[in-house]
Amino acid sequence: MKRGIYMQSITVEILKKVIHNRPQNSFKGTFGKVLIVGGNSNMGGAAIMAGSAAVHTGAGLVTIATANENLTAVHTSVPEAMFVDYCDDKQFVSLINEVDVIVLGPGLGNNQTAGRVVKTVFTNVKSGQKLIIDGSAITLLAQNLSLKSVLPTAADLIFTPHQMEWQRLSGILIADQNDVQRNQQAQQALNATVILKKHHSELYFPDGEVYQLLAGNAAMATGGMGDTLTGILAAFIAQFKEPLGEVIQAAVYMHSKIADELAKSHYVVLPTDIINNLQGFMKKYCG
Amino acid sequence: MKRGIYMQSITVEILKKVIHNRPQNSFKGTFGKVLIVGGNSNMGGAAIMAGSAAVHTGAGLVTIATANENLTAVHTSVPEAMFVDYCDDKQFVSLINEVDVIVLGPGLGNNQTAGRVVKTVFTNVKSGQKLIIDGSAITLLAQNLSLKSVLPTAADLIFTPHQMEWQRLSGILIADQNDVQRNQQAQQALNATVILKKHHSELYFPDGEVYQLLAGNAAMATGGMGDTLTGILAAFIAQFKEPLGEVIQAAVYMHSKIADELAKSHYVVLPTDIINNLQGFMKKYCG
Amino acid sequence: MKRGIYMQSITVEILKKVIHNRPQNSFKGTFGKVLIVGGNSNMGGAAIMAGSAAVHTGAGLVTIATANENLTAVHTSVPEAMFVDYCDDKQFVSLINEVDVIVLGPGLGNNQTAGRVVKTVFTNVKSGQKLIIDGSAITLLAQNLSLKSVLPTAADLIFTPHQMEWQRLSGILIADQNDVQRNQQAQQALNATVILKKHHSELYFPDGEVYQLLAGNAAMATGGMGDTLTGILAAFIAQFKEPLGEVIQAAVYMHSKIADELAKSHYVVLPTDIINNLQGFMKKYCG
Amino acid sequence: MKRGIYMQSITVEILKKVIHNRPQNSFKGTFGKVLIVGGNSNMGGAAIMAGSAAVHTGAGLVTIATANENLTAVHTSVPEAMFVDYCDDKQFVSLINEVDVIVLGPGLGNNQTAGRVVKTVFTNVKSGQKLIIDGSAITLLAQNLSLKSVLPTAADLIFTPHQMEWQRLSGILIADQNDVQRNQQAQQALNATVILKKHHSELYFPDGEVYQLLAGNAAMATGGMGDTLTGILAAFIAQFKEPLGEVIQAAVYMHSKIADELAKSHYVVLPTDIINNLQGFMKKYCG
Repeated sequence: MKRGIYMQSITVEILKKVIHNRPQNSFKGTFGKVLIVGGNSNMGGAAIMAGSAAVHTGAGLVTIATANENLTAVHTSVPEAMFVDYCDDKQFVSLINEVDVIVLGPGLGNNQTAGRVVKTVFTNVKSGQKLIIDGSAITLLAQNLSLKSVLPTAADLIFTPHQMEWQRLSGILIADQNDVQRNQQAQQALNATVILKKHHSELYFPDGEVYQLLAGNAAMATGGMGDTLTGILAAFIAQFKEPLGEVIQAAVYMHSKIADELAKSHYVVLPTDIINNLQGFMKKYCG
Repeated sequence: MKRGIYMQSITVEILKKVIHNRPQNSFKGTFGKVLIVGGNSNMGGAAIMAGSAAVHTGAGLVTIATANENLTAVHTSVPEAMFVDYCDDKQFVSLINEVDVIVLGPGLGNNQTAGRVVKTVFTNVKSGQKLIIDGSAITLLAQNLSLKSVLPTAADLIFTPHQMEWQRLSGILIADQNDVQRNQQAQQALNATVILKKHHSELYFPDGEVYQLLAGNAAMATGGMGDTLTGILAAFIAQFKEPLGEVIQAAVYMHSKIADELAKSHYVVLPTDIINNLQGFMKKYCG
Repeated sequence: MKRGIYMQSITVEILKKVIHNRPQNSFKGTFGKVLIVGGNSNMGGAAIMAGSAAVHTGAGLVTIATANENLTAVHTSVPEAMFVDYCDDKQFVSLINEVDVIVLGPGLGNNQTAGRVVKTVFTNVKSGQKLIIDGSAITLLAQNLSLKSVLPTAADLIFTPHQMEWQRLSGILIADQNDVQRNQQAQQALNATVILKKHHSELYFPDGEVYQLLAGNAAMATGGMGDTLTGILAAFIAQFKEPLGEVIQAAVYMHSKIADELAKSHYVVLPTDIINNLQGFMKKYCG
Repeated sequence: MKRGIYMQSITVEILKKVIHNRPQNSFKGTFGKVLIVGGNSNMGGAAIMAGSAAVHTGAGLVTIATANENLTAVHTSVPEAMFVDYCDDKQFVSLINEVDVIVLGPGLGNNQTAGRVVKTVFTNVKSGQKLIIDGSAITLLAQNLSLKSVLPTAADLIFTPHQMEWQRLSGILIADQNDVQRNQQAQQALNATVILKKHHSELYFPDGEVYQLLAGNAAMATGGMGDTLTGILAAFIAQFKEPLGEVIQAAVYMHSKIADELAKSHYVVLPTDIINNLQGFMKKYCG
């Protein structure tokens, strides 16, 4: 039941509105710095997919802060990205300070190290930066009062929970998550954008607007798809910047739209398929 | 000589029967969790090919439990999959408990560690889970009484021996393996499905039915082809579930059918060729 | 403001002039030896992209001297290239002595180790060798008097700064870098070729000629694009040799021209896209 | 000057003669076991390219015995191949005993370890096995009396020197290597097949026949091309077996012929390009 709130649909027009021709006189700095924070030794691939997505979407500079064990996999899989050991506090904090957009969570896991990493990010982000909180970072935050207490207030926050993570974060049971108003109340309390990932994902924005994504399909229901979305989101925000709500809508729409096109010929659409089609798709829909 | 038992042929119809359109309102959990257990430091590629096949076939979530030395190769080659060190008992057992389908054996080797890994799987699988026993795991089981004594009885077992492995497991010499009845007796004693891999592979099911695979060709006779089959089998079982016999037939048929198509233009068909064609093939034969 | 100096445009004709058919009776030594020096543990991808570009451009033999942590990423990503640990002084110096062209800087970083690496190269290059100084190596040189004092005088030097690096090296603020004459004075003081990378890059040659590159586009503004250029430059110099000025022009032009072609279908053009198109492009423009 | 000896040309007919349809009732063992021995930590890529070529050419089973540092690069780049640390004597000797064809030398280097590896192979190969001696292994043999004294006499030897290596091994200066008779005398003294790699490579067979290769082109003059040839040779011998002379001719011819086709569209033809075209080419020329 969707009580009282009108959910607008995101349509293909958002792409032409957001994806514009690059200014001729530009350099890589023009298109922003993205930091992906994630990938413990069990889930290094998640950070790699997020980073690779950010690179292929056109972020100016991408760094992947991950477990030290993932150094080689990062350099081999995404040579365009820089690597940082997220346990190397000095390098890590220095990076957090200099980037425009941070993705926190893909494949981060939920042990003590992960908690420390989340805390380091939370306590170092500043006003003007955008912080995308995904996956394990949402779970850690939901379960850990000491993290809640340092949730940044100055940076723009974007949460990308799937339904179980939203249940953990908001306290709203999955069965009750069709209550848009209740979702919105929880989102407003977070003072953040919330992208609730599900069949027909919903986007809750700080200004009270709610959007629904009708693109997307079941061929996308596979591990790593969410990690890929975070990289696309980060790169869109890094390069297209404002208005933030529209940039987010465009990123989310594009991720699913590429999958819809690929699903015509692929029974399952993998993250790497999406990544390989980003450059061509963006060119086609460039306004 | 095939005494008394009628072997049915698996035909292309099985594909449309088993591969169905994904339900719209689904998420990755809908398509099951697969655990690949294999890959010692000499044969890490085997576990990688099995895992990559499972990912490309559409399993919801794939984890590869392998030797610690293979961490980077896994993250680089199959970023969609998670990695676990199969010597890390705590993580390993916890994973065994939560997955739907387990592949045990590709590239596992037959030393003491391998024996311990097999034992850990055997003693932890539970009713409702499906266990595919392949390669070295078959040999270890055949040669090791203490493993035979803990062969699971509650889980559904699927053995995928080639002829020499079947000789070891069943005691039937390769020269005598054209005796379908004798094969069946040995299979029934195992209370398992047996996929006897050879020119025109034979499938022995618990209900007494025997199927023969006429698809497949000599271009497939190359290292890693069997590892790839296990990944496809696991992903089919994880997502299509029931009836198990038909799901297995479809997986085995598809593996060879893709190879038949590729053999028209490839002198040898490699595992990675099969893997790269899974998504398109499944879309084409989706019922 | 461009005072007094006429900047010639580089045109497509330079390609047919420089890229000629290979002599039939040749072997890999004919096409020169390239050494890429760069890639600390954070930026191994930079050295990999430079090395891969050199291989795909047709250098006879390519070696990548990099941090030891990058061994596996190098062998996996560029199997055609050899690996050397740049902290292994004996191997490193021996290599410097035997190659034709050295690229110094991609992803090298600016810590003490990097400084030592730069010094080792500076103090070992000899007359007849070509040394391309890029990225961090420029910054280190700009900031370090002891390195300035050992800047080689016998080898041909080619600097490839972006605008900020040129500011550091020349002391000319970015805002003043449209003063061609002043750039030239600084370049002449270096007794080197300077490729000033920006929108419409400028090439300053030791003979006083100045060229401007009108090819190139904003889709190239992404991390790693400069690393790729160094590899192309090195391979051109290694195989086409003389006249050095024209060979450099052709390399710089080609790098941007390939990107222009790719930008018709790619919103962002990645280093790996350039690399994958080198062989076909060179064939097409072979004189 | 070619005194007295008639050099026959290898023609395309050799392909249809040697590459035949695979027997239907076959398994991977039918197509032989290949062992690649090479790749120290500096040149791991050489062993990888040789192994990958053997896999793509259709060898039944391929193992790469290389430096331990190359484990991950092997598993990532050639998952179909097995890895062995060539310093692990027990595993290494056991493998030498069970394979059909051994390639010794690609990227092996010439330090003490390399010498030990060569000696281990020399002292363990047996009658009926084929041993391809390439690259550093030729140089080591040429410079080391103690290796000469254990050069195997029972196995079939195939040397693949380029001109400098042939000079080292035979004592014939490069300038004198157009003296076919003299080359042949040196080859006969080795009691081996010699493939002298140069513009128009020459093949000297134990039965006194000499063949010349007119295929091939300067686009192939790049690092790793010889490593790739050894893998193709090994896989041809492993699967097509007899008559050995013709099988060798076909392998050498195919390697260059694929490069000739690719050189129509590629300015430089890389080892990986050859490798990626093996399966399709062999299908086209299958007799």
